[in-house]
Amino acid sequence: MIKIGILGYGNLGRGVEAAIKQSPDLELTGVYTRRSPDTLKIATEGVAVRSASELEPKRDDIDVLIICGGSATDLPAMTPKYASLYNVVDSFDTHANIPKHFDAVDKAAKAAGTIGLISCGWDPGMFSVNRLYSLSILPDGTPYTFWGKGVSQGHSDAVRRIEGVLDARQYTIPVPAALEAVRNGENPELTTREKHTRECFVVAEEGADKARIENEIKTMPNYFADYDTTVHFITAEEMKRDHSGLPHGGSVIYSGRTAGGNTHIIEYRLTLDSNPEFTGAVLAAYARAVCKLSAEGVSGAKTVFDIAPAYLSPMSGEELRAHYL
Amino acid sequence: MIKIGILGYGNLGRGVEAAIKQSPDLELTGVYTRRSPDTLKIATEGVAVRSASELEPKRDDIDVLIICGGSATDLPAMTPKYASLYNVVDSFDTHANIPKHFDAVDKAAKAAGTIGLISCGWDPGMFSVNRLYSLSILPDGTPYTFWGKGVSQGHSDAVRRIEGVLDARQYTIPVPAALEAVRNGENPELTTREKHTRECFVVAEEGADKARIENEIKTMPNYFADYDTTVHFITAEEMKRDHSGLPHGGSVIYSGRTAGGNTHIIEYRLTLDSNPEFTGAVLAAYARAVCKLSAEGVSGAKTVFDIAPAYLSPMSGEELRAHYL
Repeated sequence: MIKIGILGYGNLGRGVEAAIKQSPDLELTGVYTRRSPDTLKIATEGVAVRSASELEPKRDDIDVLIICGGSATDLPAMTPKYASLYNVVDSFDTHANIPKHFDAVDKAAKAAGTIGLISCGWDPGMFSVNRLYSLSILPDGTPYTFWGKGVSQGHSDAVRRIEGVLDARQYTIPVPAALEAVRNGENPELTTREKHTRECFVVAEEGADKARIENEIKTMPNYFADYDTTVHFITAEEMKRDHSGLPHGGSVIYSGRTAGGNTHIIEYRLTLDSNPEFTGAVLAAYARAVCKLSAEGVSGAKTVFDIAPAYLSPMSGEELRAHYL
Repeated sequence: MIKIGILGYGNLGRGVEAAIKQSPDLELTGVYTRRSPDTLKIATEGVAVRSASELEPKRDDIDVLIICGGSATDLPAMTPKYASLYNVVDSFDTHANIPKHFDAVDKAAKAAGTIGLISCGWDPGMFSVNRLYSLSILPDGTPYTFWGKGVSQGHSDAVRRIEGVLDARQYTIPVPAALEAVRNGENPELTTREKHTRECFVVAEEGADKARIENEIKTMPNYFADYDTTVHFITAEEMKRDHSGLPHGGSVIYSGRTAGGNTHIIEYRLTLDSNPEFTGAVLAAYARAVCKLSAEGVSGAKTVFDIAPAYLSPMSGEELRAHYL
């Protein structure tokens, strides 16, 4: 059994917990939190909730610690810190800062003889793996990434911060005509606006100026100004009834050409009912891989690019070759 | 530069050659054939065509030998034989015999300190990798594989062997309703007939009994009897004009559930204008990986399951993390 600790029990932590439940070779040995442990009720019976401070000094009931924190401030500090004690997996997703994060984790992990797998999930993660396979096979080509239809937490939060907004949910939606042109091998050059639209569902305070709220959303720099955005005002009841899930997904489409002049389209598409449950399942599978690699004496920072697919599976090489090759 | 030899110059060998042309770090140093070398005219200028016998004793101008032979009789003999001299890559695709082939190649490669990567291409190959990723992430799920629309060489050959047939091309076509049900997460149980249809284009000899030919095709055991098959008789000119390409592709669709009761659909889809050029490009990328792994001292038989994605790329880890993660 591979002993897993989860640090952080938000949506993602609960997703990892759900994935461990489906994996007969993984065992959850503790959930660690920076909140007061007695305020947390977790889904797995008989598993302790402990303060994050109990992760130091090093415990012997954790083979891999899965760190479920935010990329803005949590992970840049936590992943290197805990990599100096444990094999760790995180889902760091601030693309521009990945090289810096990798270096910090690599230094800590190499010094401690542990593995720190960073930026795991589906983007970065499975989408990255598919981009890499495609461009390695077909060097003359163009990668396209479309997100959605799905809930963007960051954009939902941005709308919630507007004065007069009680609750909000933002869906990112790929533009069908853009998807079709890419799938047809037309290699279009697409602006931000041509690739995705944004749809917001907003619960406003009673008496709030809805026209102002809508305008503030649509003109918000970075988040909405470069997109065609639709805003719907709904009631709190409608929000709860129709928008309580966290679906997401998207497509990585690669349009490549071989020297004979032929075009090849490779598409990897995810349609996820629950973004955190799928992401948690990816993290759990890579935690298995990290444990196996660590047993082979490997150390340092790693990404999904560095892990052979067989390491993700509990099955032996013989089983995999006989049934899945 | 990684020095590549190609053994066998049919459609696949030419596909590998075209891929090498697009890869600045790969160099074709020779094409080897069991035919008389002077009967072969290859597409790359300045590269020698040599008899297969010149592969023995071991040459020093080959880092990886890509063996482009048939799975029925060529590869079971050739891959172990040449793995005792060179790092080799093959596209062995008789699924039921993969374990036996793996063992034979493993024995030869381990004794020689070489790597023998078997069963590379897209199925087995990229489809296998995607099946493995999906089932490792979502252990509670069902994998579906659809092939086509594309030309099946084996089925085309089977039709050509019928008396009175001058030429034939067989297309395998997934049934749209089956694809849709799987993509919708309905987890249908599908018979062979419900998954694919077969469409044949046949050039018959003058005066041949077309009704008999059509009946022989539709009732042919293993190849056609279990499918709904359509047969069209066309002229040799129409065959040349409309059916000279070798397009193929298909989808691996995985429908999985997480413990929270949510459904997730993962689809990997290929739409290939040229089956041999894409397959050749996959083999060339894995030849690069084999060369890198060999330089690290790895030996033995390997499959696509055992190769981390980063090994397929000529780019450094830094470049990949900065731009493609």
